[in-house]
Amino acid sequence: MTTVIPSLSDVKRAHQRIEKYINKTPILTSKSLNEITGASLYFKCENFQKVGAFKIRGAVNKIFRYRPEDRENGIATHSSGNHAQAVALAAKIAGTEAYVVMPDNSAEVKIRAVQEYGAKITFCPPGDESRKAACDKIINETGAIFIPPFEDPDIICGAATVAKEFIEDISGLDFLITPVGGGGLSAGTALAANFLDPNLKVILGEPEKADDTYRSFNSGKAQKVKNPETIADGLRVSVGELNFEIIREMVEDVVTVSEKEIVKAMRMIWERMKVIIEPSSAVAFAVVLKEKKRFKGKEVGIILTGGNVDLTKLPFN
Amino acid sequence: MTTVIPSLSDVKRAHQRIEKYINKTPILTSKSLNEITGASLYFKCENFQKVGAFKIRGAVNKIFRYRPEDRENGIATHSSGNHAQAVALAAKIAGTEAYVVMPDNSAEVKIRAVQEYGAKITFCPPGDESRKAACDKIINETGAIFIPPFEDPDIICGAATVAKEFIEDISGLDFLITPVGGGGLSAGTALAANFLDPNLKVILGEPEKADDTYRSFNSGKAQKVKNPETIADGLRVSVGELNFEIIREMVEDVVTVSEKEIVKAMRMIWERMKVIIEPSSAVAFAVVLKEKKRFKGKEVGIILTGGNVDLTKLPFN
Repeated sequence: MTTVIPSLSDVKRAHQRIEKYINKTPILTSKSLNEITGASLYFKCENFQKVGAFKIRGAVNKIFRYRPEDRENGIATHSSGNHAQAVALAAKIAGTEAYVVMPDNSAEVKIRAVQEYGAKITFCPPGDESRKAACDKIINETGAIFIPPFEDPDIICGAATVAKEFIEDISGLDFLITPVGGGGLSAGTALAANFLDPNLKVILGEPEKADDTYRSFNSGKAQKVKNPETIADGLRVSVGELNFEIIREMVEDVVTVSEKEIVKAMRMIWERMKVIIEPSSAVAFAVVLKEKKRFKGKEVGIILTGGNVDLTKLPFN
Repeated sequence: MTTVIPSLSDVKRAHQRIEKYINKTPILTSKSLNEITGASLYFKCENFQKVGAFKIRGAVNKIFRYRPEDRENGIATHSSGNHAQAVALAAKIAGTEAYVVMPDNSAEVKIRAVQEYGAKITFCPPGDESRKAACDKIINETGAIFIPPFEDPDIICGAATVAKEFIEDISGLDFLITPVGGGGLSAGTALAANFLDPNLKVILGEPEKADDTYRSFNSGKAQKVKNPETIADGLRVSVGELNFEIIREMVEDVVTVSEKEIVKAMRMIWERMKVIIEPSSAVAFAVVLKEKKRFKGKEVGIILTGGNVDLTKLPFN
């Protein structure tokens, strides 16, 4: 597995590899949101993707990069979120075992989902170090392959297939906006846009409270963020270094939005489009609401990254 | 405007009349709900329809049955729900005035939506009689045309276009299930099925707490229900007599479901399909969950009638 920046043929091969296992997600439009923003918006619905998030694309791409005999001891990861479900389903698809380390304060709905795919869950105390330690122990004992959540060329290429489908379906987009957390989807989106439509500008949306990529982008050097309290739970991690290398080169801008702006954008999509998105997904649309002038009259693609929310803990009131 | 049972060409003409003003809504499937039920389910997403519900179809059909000079004094109705929005938008489309009488305890979100379409709202005390009185007064003063919510051949024909699109898109359905309130959609669905695919069985789902159609169907005579307390707010009315005449002839069965079953079905669609439906819409899917054996191995079409919910008052906890 290469550590250099992926090429167009890497992305194309990833797409061929995963195509039959994933949903080609629909692209929705909303007359009412177009009227509100003055832009022509296109929403790529990865909330309708398997496991309810784009994460399955990278996980399936990664597992099938290994020969059957190399993956027969299973795959392992640590995650409290969508990546956990993606690894669990990817293992099921590949006919092997999934070992998932989850912090013991994970949401019940997420634990249940991982269990439903048949993964073996190991609970550990919350915190990066205990998660990694528990995962390493399992890998040593079982010989399972580690599937990283975002900082990995195969994960990036899997995620890049979202933008590839987007660009193939909608020609003439001016902007493509995605939320940024660890940067796998951001890097993949930037790569795909760069290869397939160099005029297309990629913008990243980030919570003000987890603004590591914003600071990295403006300083030119990868910065960290530690346990930020943003509602956008998928974006609480720091951007990966390889991912940032690609982002720095190929992304037009990083825009931060407040918690209030995230909830407002989320609510607007729920109410107007009748689709369920998680707070992380709302960050991209919040960028359009914040910078209406920039996007006015433009064709704007927005990636709705996922729809996994706890319905008993919604931010509306 | 005829009071006899509409013909196939009435339905076809209705479709031609409204086609350019409505969304041809998508039909979604869900692997996970197929696994849970053992059936092949198809969901027609009228929650993505204009005004967030199928009601716009009947309202637009009705208004364009009148000559321009006959509708220039506007249209009027009384409603606290989706029909209010439908009439407001239909008037806007036809370039005339909408007068909507709403009970003064209507949900704020619904009032705001009706206002946004530019309708003139008159508030009245809750209750059938004061609503009718307020509406009659407006009609006398303005010369506006009354647009009934469900008991009307043109409204039925407009609603029938949902099933017409469904049958044209998905061939070989065994069942078509819709919730029943006033019975406009139910009668329209039964008519369309009867004309276009006589082997297709139409089943109606109804809340136990508002079981007038169930009792009517089993006794052969239209029954009433008074202020039922079901969460399915679109189904609190009694079935119309013309509608029941069609239902009695052409519907296979009426199945009632409990409040708990409605909320469970609603939650399952929110969580698994990531689409927002209102409680009334969940009633049809609740029928499948309740009678799994009947639908096992069958091709089942379900009409998701609308997606207008108050996000601050959800039934999940």
